[in-house]
Amino acid sequence: MVILGIDPGLAIVGWAVIETHRGNSRPIAFGCIRTPAHTLIESRLAIIESDLNEIITKYKPDEMAIEELFFNTNITTGIAVAEARGVILCTAYKAGVKISEYTPLQVKQAVVGYGKAEKHQVIAMVTSILRLPAPPKPDDTADAVAIALCHAQCAGSAMGQFFNKR
Amino acid sequence: MVILGIDPGLAIVGWAVIETHRGNSRPIAFGCIRTPAHTLIESRLAIIESDLNEIITKYKPDEMAIEELFFNTNITTGIAVAEARGVILCTAYKAGVKISEYTPLQVKQAVVGYGKAEKHQVIAMVTSILRLPAPPKPDDTADAVAIALCHAQCAGSAMGQFFNKR
Repeated sequence: MVILGIDPGLAIVGWAVIETHRGNSRPIAFGCIRTPAHTLIESRLAIIESDLNEIITKYKPDEMAIEELFFNTNITTGIAVAEARGVILCTAYKAGVKISEYTPLQVKQAVVGYGKAEKHQVIAMVTSILRLPAPPKPDDTADAVAIALCHAQCAGSAMGQFFNKR
Repeated sequence: MVILGIDPGLAIVGWAVIETHRGNSRPIAFGCIRTPAHTLIESRLAIIESDLNEIITKYKPDEMAIEELFFNTNITTGIAVAEARGVILCTAYKAGVKISEYTPLQVKQAVVGYGKAEKHQVIAMVTSILRLPAPPKPDDTADAVAIALCHAQCAGSAMGQFFNKR
């Protein structure tokens, strides 16, 4: 199964494509979509849609895993992230990609084995699991890899049905 | 100028098309897009995109006015509304419709002349200004008419450039 992991955002959308087979995952490609600051939000959203469509067309993921949104600190940033997330969900759905959502806690639990793991621990585990020569940069991309790995683990286990809320 | 007013939401998107000319506005069409509860959010977002595209194709608005989002009460609902709003902004942008945003306070100020007006006052003024036989239903549609009228007023005045934040 080919999984597309997404860390949603308006300025940066982290993405990662992995292939998982019988509990083993290997990286296919990862990176991030960047949109220019100080431009209209609607044009930034259109860039995200267009770039995501390119990624889906190129790597043909069977499923997409995306981080759920929580508003803890900055609500204004949160609104923009949610707007981008709406465009991402709609784009993947129209492309026929099945979507699963995970909380940051679930992602850390799956990748590090500890729901309150630090960011550097997540990045180290992601790098180690996929035997990458260096940690994925920027952090948004590393997060997207972690989300994809979380889905690979959940989709491959009977627990996945309980873990993923859908 | 033909203006499309939008009151964003996930369950209901209020919409209103008006034509404005030298300070006079007349209604062309209004209604609401409804999406089924208890279905996947991505499929609801795709319905909003598809229906909005139909409205734009049919009425060919020159500009769109949409309410800005604030999170006062229910943050979980707020995330869903922001996700829908992202899809709406992206769809209008791709269709070449220029977008303006207004706060609820600006809309009330423009339509009732008082920023803290009650909802029933806004509905009464909207019905009166457009000489409608009855108030637009549901409230989301009436709100969309108010947003369109707010933009008609702002776009027609020099103050509009200061009023609209863009």
